[in-house]
Amino acid sequence: MLHLKSETGPRWFAQVDSNLDDILIDHAHCEKKAAGTALNLMFAYVEDLELCREMTEIVGEELEHFHMVVDLLARRGVKFRRLKPSSYGRKLNDLVRTGEPHKAVDRLLVAGLIEARSCERFQKLAEHVDDKELAEFYQSLFESEARHHTTYTRLAKHFAPEAEVLARLEELYDAEAAIMEEGEELPRMHS
Amino acid sequence: MLHLKSETGPRWFAQVDSNLDDILIDHAHCEKKAAGTALNLMFAYVEDLELCREMTEIVGEELEHFHMVVDLLARRGVKFRRLKPSSYGRKLNDLVRTGEPHKAVDRLLVAGLIEARSCERFQKLAEHVDDKELAEFYQSLFESEARHHTTYTRLAKHFAPEAEVLARLEELYDAEAAIMEEGEELPRMHS
Repeated sequence: MLHLKSETGPRWFAQVDSNLDDILIDHAHCEKKAAGTALNLMFAYVEDLELCREMTEIVGEELEHFHMVVDLLARRGVKFRRLKPSSYGRKLNDLVRTGEPHKAVDRLLVAGLIEARSCERFQKLAEHVDDKELAEFYQSLFESEARHHTTYTRLAKHFAPEAEVLARLEELYDAEAAIMEEGEELPRMHS
Repeated sequence: MLHLKSETGPRWFAQVDSNLDDILIDHAHCEKKAAGTALNLMFAYVEDLELCREMTEIVGEELEHFHMVVDLLARRGVKFRRLKPSSYGRKLNDLVRTGEPHKAVDRLLVAGLIEARSCERFQKLAEHVDDKELAEFYQSLFESEARHHTTYTRLAKHFAPEAEVLARLEELYDAEAAIMEEGEELPRMHS
């Protein structure tokens, strides 16, 4: 369903093993950023009432997840703090074309791609960690992130014909895999 | 409870009587902007977990109100559309001091002041309009806006001593009344 063009491998697991706290803190920030992305899309395309309704749902769910991660950190005695973000989101956002309706299509597809990769990472994290609470938590987030991915891809079709959207999605999937391949030294959810 | 330094009078009611649809459409945009303000405050002061929790509540409620207004417009056959905003929010935001913690105090107090004025206007609108559905709708929004006002004022005290916050609030109340006194030709919720 997710169609990602690459699979998370040992490089990231090594980062997880030596920097789990940073990755969890980064995850909280990612949820907050995902809420911001959804609200910004609502501001940009406010005449699209279906989009507004879906973005409202997503804002609510992402903020709920943010608090779930913050609570999980508190239970583990990890202080929540600011963290330099990974370059993943910025690199993907650099791919967004200028001029409508291309811009709308790309913003929605990029938002959906980030959800897809988060989804894959949550699953991998749940399988990888030797900690039942953490594994169950990440398993529980999997379904909603997958749903968000589908929602964003569907909404992109409000702005361009389906074939065009799917062709662009294919290009963005390739670009995303290349960005993941580059990797990043900072241990983050999308490093 | 609201302590506003001026009361909405005949100038605004004349705008309501001749441009009700525009004022309702503007109200939907105001709810959306209020959600944006709360989320931005959460981004700016993310280490303050009580603030994050309260902002999450407010984001959810404002977006719910946005959809309530959009649905009300649809029932009345009014097309929701973009609208030039009133200068009220900008004029108030211009009063925000630079440099922390003053900036945090002012951003929270200004957000609270806008809630207080909205609250007053909703009440006035409910009393003024000769339309039962509309009157009941605006009456129903009164309580949550009043609560948001109180929340913002309380949170400002996280960033400065109470006496300082209350003194600044007094100054901002005066400034808000002056902005309202200037008025605005565009018929808007805060014109």
